[in-house]
Amino acid sequence: MRIAVFAGDGIGPEVTEQAVRVLEKLDLPGLELVEGDVGGAAYYKHGHPLPAETLDVARSAQAILFGAVGDFSCDHLERHLRPEQAILGLRKELGLFANLRPAQVFAGLEDLTTLRPEVASKIDLLIVRELNGDVYFGEKGMRRLEDGRRQGWDMMSYAEDEVRRIAQVGFKAAMGRSKKLCSVDKANVLETSQLWRDVVIEVAKEYPEVELTHMYVDNAAMQLVKNPGQFDVIVTGNLFGDILSDQASMCVGSIGLLASASLAEGTYGLYEPIHGSAPDIAGKGLANPMATILSAAMLLRHSLGLEAAAARIEAAVAKTLADGIKGGDLGGTAGTREIGDAVLERL
Amino acid sequence: MRIAVFAGDGIGPEVTEQAVRVLEKLDLPGLELVEGDVGGAAYYKHGHPLPAETLDVARSAQAILFGAVGDFSCDHLERHLRPEQAILGLRKELGLFANLRPAQVFAGLEDLTTLRPEVASKIDLLIVRELNGDVYFGEKGMRRLEDGRRQGWDMMSYAEDEVRRIAQVGFKAAMGRSKKLCSVDKANVLETSQLWRDVVIEVAKEYPEVELTHMYVDNAAMQLVKNPGQFDVIVTGNLFGDILSDQASMCVGSIGLLASASLAEGTYGLYEPIHGSAPDIAGKGLANPMATILSAAMLLRHSLGLEAAAARIEAAVAKTLADGIKGGDLGGTAGTREIGDAVLERL
Ligand SMILES: CC(C)[C@H](C(=O)O)[C@@H](O)C(=O)O
Ligand SMILES: CC(C)[C@H](C(=O)O)[C@@H](O)C(=O)O
Repeated sequence: MRIAVFAGDGIGPEVTEQAVRVLEKLDLPGLELVEGDVGGAAYYKHGHPLPAETLDVARSAQAILFGAVGDFSCDHLERHLRPEQAILGLRKELGLFANLRPAQVFAGLEDLTTLRPEVASKIDLLIVRELNGDVYFGEKGMRRLEDGRRQGWDMMSYAEDEVRRIAQVGFKAAMGRSKKLCSVDKANVLETSQLWRDVVIEVAKEYPEVELTHMYVDNAAMQLVKNPGQFDVIVTGNLFGDILSDQASMCVGSIGLLASASLAEGTYGLYEPIHGSAPDIAGKGLANPMATILSAAMLLRHSLGLEAAAARIEAAVAKTLADGIKGGDLGGTAGTREIGDAVLERL
Repeated sequence: MRIAVFAGDGIGPEVTEQAVRVLEKLDLPGLELVEGDVGGAAYYKHGHPLPAETLDVARSAQAILFGAVGDFSCDHLERHLRPEQAILGLRKELGLFANLRPAQVFAGLEDLTTLRPEVASKIDLLIVRELNGDVYFGEKGMRRLEDGRRQGWDMMSYAEDEVRRIAQVGFKAAMGRSKKLCSVDKANVLETSQLWRDVVIEVAKEYPEVELTHMYVDNAAMQLVKNPGQFDVIVTGNLFGDILSDQASMCVGSIGLLASASLAEGTYGLYEPIHGSAPDIAGKGLANPMATILSAAMLLRHSLGLEAAAARIEAAVAKTLADGIKGGDLGGTAGTREIGDAVLERL
């Protein structure tokens, strides 16, 4: 059992360090952790945000525990050398096409959201975002039109099989929850969305028990404010999923607790906290490692089938929170290592 | 002085009717109102959502007062025949490239938003959305790939002059407000956004007093939840503007009060409530006409230069609200005509 650990930039290394301590403490027989460089850190060391060695490490492992990438000092670089290319490259190279982003308000933490408590407490949703297609991975470029004007362009597209496999993930997730699936698109304007909608409707025939609805993305952004409790599972494309999953996470307030999984067919997956590299607090020992620790739990469950170990981690985190040990993001005072220690003690 | 009145679908006709009564009551010398069919209503009458006659009426006028378009019974039609094409066609044909969407919580109506009152009360922002370009108007289609798979595709692009003119609108708006402009893009993934960002930075040189910031769209969707009060003017492209302006509107809660302007170069403009056709309550006399009445006020101010008349309408609406006459959307019981009557009385 081999896990690749890619800490990355900003607070990535400090939060990952605590998750690694937790994994090691579990003493799982045969578990091996292998590190690799990604993001700005990898660029400065190897000249590329996703070096071939790192990709080799990823391929030799059964799952990746990912910290964060992002470094403003790389803003001037050509696109293919910027830190973000590490995560985009891993998603594409490893076929990580399904991003699962659960959002739910933790009991006792309702105060952290800017939504009224009675609205926030009803949030319990899962966003299933496609990660391998859409305008993210189409052809793109900068060109001069015949009249000399500069133009930036990006091709947006989805092919039916790309939609079908993520729709399957959405319907399966809905079957395991309350059997409601909302597919979000912009079919009134985009042909990409029309194909998306057509295929989702086709796949729906295989899941007669699931109640399928369709919503335009602008309306979805409104409804997530008006009544987020109405949603259970949302399935959507790469670009809309990027926006809506971040919006939904912030509705929960406690962003330092939210983990995410990016899955390939089979059991392979990349697990990461949804917070970014947070350069403003990097290196200060202030970052909350809980989302990364919970990402490690997701990893054990989904990619290694170690349900008991995953549950142990989750219980230890819940206990730590219940004992009032919280990071600054949750209104507490505990630092990165202190939180790591507290979770370890409670394992 | 000629105003085209396009009532459209759903609640469009009933809310527009009240705005027309208000305009007529003002007895503005030389004001002429000309009607035209748009949307599903136009499709069923003329076989097209934006008939040539309607476009002629629009061209003969100095501004358009628009109700709403959208009719589920047209969902099966080919894209170019659907109701939405009326508004998209008007934007494109008339060069309505700048959508102004103010969002601010009305004093006394803080209870309507799902955000905590202390968060909501700080909202006072303006979204400037580009309306003539982006993935909305690029080439698009449905095709079969060589291996037989269906694919939907849409070309996203911006040319430098398209970005420059909307950036100008954004900077000018910022100059008239608190001199803070936030440009929203996804430059870490999209070349269209990279060009957008480059050009916005170029235009910024002409406005040294304005403090320009850049934000990725996913982060913007988060920040609108976390702390919407941080924003003053936001400038963004067509697709991101569609999503973020709807999200921001809902943060305000009282969507039945929000007006919007879509402007061409010069004084020509289209004015519409931001709520849609609301088929569920159409024809029942329940819709709140205030957003359309306030749209008429914006029209008088921006397109006809009638500041005093615009202010009279706005004061009458404010007085109506202060007197507790509110539609069901604001927690009141007043119907469409009753609200129209009340505003007329207070003019
Ligand atoms: C870093 C960036 C390229 C990425 C994305 O847009 O997918 C991030 O926002 C995310 O959601 O994981
Ligand atoms: C009806 C639709 C095509 C339109 C858009 O996407 O622009 C609407 O959502 C809007 O924002 O005016």
